[in-house]
Amino acid sequence: MTSDVEFWFDFSSPYAYFAAMTVESRLARYNRPVVWRPFLLGAAFKVTGMSPLSQTPLRGDYAKRDWERLAKILGLPFRLPQQHPYRSQATARSYYWIEQHDPTVAISFAKAAFRAHFERNVDLQITENVLDVARPFLAGPAELKELVAWLYSEGAKEKLRSVTSDALSRCVFGSPFFLVDGEPFWGWDRLPLLERWLETGEWRPDFGGPPAMVRTQ
Amino acid sequence: MTSDVEFWFDFSSPYAYFAAMTVESRLARYNRPVVWRPFLLGAAFKVTGMSPLSQTPLRGDYAKRDWERLAKILGLPFRLPQQHPYRSQATARSYYWIEQHDPTVAISFAKAAFRAHFERNVDLQITENVLDVARPFLAGPAELKELVAWLYSEGAKEKLRSVTSDALSRCVFGSPFFLVDGEPFWGWDRLPLLERWLETGEWRPDFGGPPAMVRTQ
Repeated sequence: MTSDVEFWFDFSSPYAYFAAMTVESRLARYNRPVVWRPFLLGAAFKVTGMSPLSQTPLRGDYAKRDWERLAKILGLPFRLPQQHPYRSQATARSYYWIEQHDPTVAISFAKAAFRAHFERNVDLQITENVLDVARPFLAGPAELKELVAWLYSEGAKEKLRSVTSDALSRCVFGSPFFLVDGEPFWGWDRLPLLERWLETGEWRPDFGGPPAMVRTQ
Repeated sequence: MTSDVEFWFDFSSPYAYFAAMTVESRLARYNRPVVWRPFLLGAAFKVTGMSPLSQTPLRGDYAKRDWERLAKILGLPFRLPQQHPYRSQATARSYYWIEQHDPTVAISFAKAAFRAHFERNVDLQITENVLDVARPFLAGPAELKELVAWLYSEGAKEKLRSVTSDALSRCVFGSPFFLVDGEPFWGWDRLPLLERWLETGEWRPDFGGPPAMVRTQ
């Protein structure tokens, strides 16, 4: 019995941006559905006692440097927004509204939201800006109106709260975080290990050399 | 101008154990000296506000599972000691005493200390146990006596204090942590990125496919 690949993330996380931009091409050959699951990382921080990376002494400086070099390596535009991290409620709520109608379109919206924020530094705490990102993925003004109504509804709040509590109950405490067949993978740099799992479905010693995840060519 | 590869770690860190057991074979082909630098991670935690992994909710459970699977993949014996992390002062002080006499022997001692603790769960907070690990690397009873004197000396305390403050002043806040040519690499899973650096000495976009660090074959 194999499960979907669950891709958990907070829209404000740079490492999640790198994962979002690359995960589809990376995992394409495994033919496993990838379910995108935005949640609120702040809730996990309350449990683990951690703080946002860019606000942590030493680790923050390291992370900023790390994001720059990963962007270079991946050939992705990246500019850290002045306000980081941002409160991603409106983005995540929009995601789930679009997902109810079409999960594939929701993923396109998610990627557009990541790009808007990390390439062009669009402030997605402003609902109007989130709607601008969403507009191309909506059928027309009627859907836009529905989305606006949803964003301010108790239902949207409740949806995001329940998704986030689902994340915590399954020990998802970081972003990005992948779950597949009950196996957890935390961080962008664990994609190689996730791929190894998708290939083999078990952990075997690899005496033939460095493990696949760390082979350089 | 290229620098040595500095390998910073705390003897009580499981990820450092994995790095210590593999770093020499992984980096052999780059012909760059690797300098081992044990320090006290607790001092860095005070600055970053972090706590030992195994004592952090959610992250602790993840780490324990992660160590198990990495040990399997690397084909290394691994058993998490009941008391974790341990205070690694005596181990690190012994390391620096042996290093003054012979850096190569010190590295052999370091690997033996990691193995004693993570394979056989030897309690290295007990100085007598550290001496047992050190004995095969000493010339005889005279050297053993000198080492014992050093362990309790003000000089040993000062040496470890100054190494640890050197680590912090250079933003080394985790274990393992690598520094080369001023470029920082945090974590066992960043060895592939370190290797890429040693190969190219710069960060270039890699449009030809997934970056080398994440290639699976």
